[in-house]
Amino acid sequence: MSSASTLAEPAANAHTLLSRRNRDGMLAAPQQWNEVLETILNHRSVRAFLPRRLPEGTLELLIAAAQSASSSSNLQFWSVVAVQAAARKSRLAELAGQQQFIRDAPLLLVWLADLSRLDRIAAEHQAQVDGTHYLEEFIVGIVDAALAAQSALIAAESLGLGGVYIGAMRNLPEQIAAELGLPPHVFAVFGMSVGYPDPARPTDIKPRLPQSLVLHREQYSTAPCSEAIDGYNATVRGFQRERAMQAIDWTQQCFNRVKDAAALRGRDRMRVALRNLGFELR
Amino acid sequence: MSSASTLAEPAANAHTLLSRRNRDGMLAAPQQWNEVLETILNHRSVRAFLPRRLPEGTLELLIAAAQSASSSSNLQFWSVVAVQAAARKSRLAELAGQQQFIRDAPLLLVWLADLSRLDRIAAEHQAQVDGTHYLEEFIVGIVDAALAAQSALIAAESLGLGGVYIGAMRNLPEQIAAELGLPPHVFAVFGMSVGYPDPARPTDIKPRLPQSLVLHREQYSTAPCSEAIDGYNATVRGFQRERAMQAIDWTQQCFNRVKDAAALRGRDRMRVALRNLGFELR
Repeated sequence: MSSASTLAEPAANAHTLLSRRNRDGMLAAPQQWNEVLETILNHRSVRAFLPRRLPEGTLELLIAAAQSASSSSNLQFWSVVAVQAAARKSRLAELAGQQQFIRDAPLLLVWLADLSRLDRIAAEHQAQVDGTHYLEEFIVGIVDAALAAQSALIAAESLGLGGVYIGAMRNLPEQIAAELGLPPHVFAVFGMSVGYPDPARPTDIKPRLPQSLVLHREQYSTAPCSEAIDGYNATVRGFQRERAMQAIDWTQQCFNRVKDAAALRGRDRMRVALRNLGFELR
Repeated sequence: MSSASTLAEPAANAHTLLSRRNRDGMLAAPQQWNEVLETILNHRSVRAFLPRRLPEGTLELLIAAAQSASSSSNLQFWSVVAVQAAARKSRLAELAGQQQFIRDAPLLLVWLADLSRLDRIAAEHQAQVDGTHYLEEFIVGIVDAALAAQSALIAAESLGLGGVYIGAMRNLPEQIAAELGLPPHVFAVFGMSVGYPDPARPTDIKPRLPQSLVLHREQYSTAPCSEAIDGYNATVRGFQRERAMQAIDWTQQCFNRVKDAAALRGRDRMRVALRNLGFELR
């Protein structure tokens, strides 16, 4: 199942994967190649899963991978809830944009920025942790959770599993917190469905912006980029055409997604929601 | 150089790596093992580098890995500045906690939550992107940057390189922005030094909290955890003893780090700094 099983021709794979990720880029074939690069470059979000449970021990292995990611000052300001019960997955799907794959995948991981664990430890030690009420430590919690989640996802992909991040887990933060029994000072940053990809409904490597628009050298460049953006819009339309998807420019997709408060699908009230969850964000 | 070169005895490696990461855990040896898991589980932060440049094309390969990470709604709200000039690395080291390794490593990557690129594109199209001024899209930018960075770091480690996240890049956000020429609506989330680890100054796998404190099943558990925390404090002290480090409980380290505003080393003014950088965080 693993992408590694196709590692017969490293150079060809490297070139193929790099050119599918950056279709309008000019990346040279790398001097080194390995199974790790293959797995990372081969990422695609999977939203169609087989009705097949994960092997015993897989969840724990994914969490060990997550715990191997860096954590700011080793504070470990993250936790994860693993949801496998069908009824709970279904209720969470209702709260997170009605996405069917949340029900279909055998495992739903909800990644948490968790400042509550240290609150509880501090209470027991009569210690003060007033600094956790600042925006900075909220950022730490989000970064810690994201690094952990990404290591877990790459680990899953190396095992032939697939997954997808679920930002819609932030649509209704208070209801998600209630469903998961989260104490104050814990925030569900995103969800992640994990399972065996359905080979009958494969997904493709999504082309990204040319590196010239993402990678800055020495200083940030605000040089005009409309030509590169036009090229990327054409690339995205080509990708849509191949998959018989409705054609829409990448720029228009972005504009639609963030044009105003209403476009944020409830997430425009994030500040209020976070305050309700115990985050002062001083 | 790659950790993969030691993959001769998979089962033994799996057990060793898992038991060093979770010294007081009881993780069973996994049924599957591969070079990707090996690389992820073998992570350690590297702060001692050889004075050796990266091979041609390595930076671009790491950024291709970064671009292969998921991005919320494909908005790609991140960018990265690659700093290799000695003088600039030195100035950034001054601003980021005077950490010598920033100067020593051949490459400093500064990972950015970047809402400015879409601002500029929207201005050219006379389109409205008012939604980017909400806290939600700031969170998206941070998560996007973190996922990208983690894929780049794992890719680097697979190539025998090492790296370390630099949270101190948030100590003085406005000065960092000035040094890197960041336009408004861009925030340096963290830095990352990358280079060849100095084999004369090796680092170890840092033990993490027992999984029972991090992995919740179905719902978040607030069950008393002082026994597990005591065990982890003992584990951390054992780790410090092995390395002749000063002994301090993990709990005390955490309390020291976040006990009050002053402990945040300037980052208690993050809200003001972000406003100065053009983030309204509505």
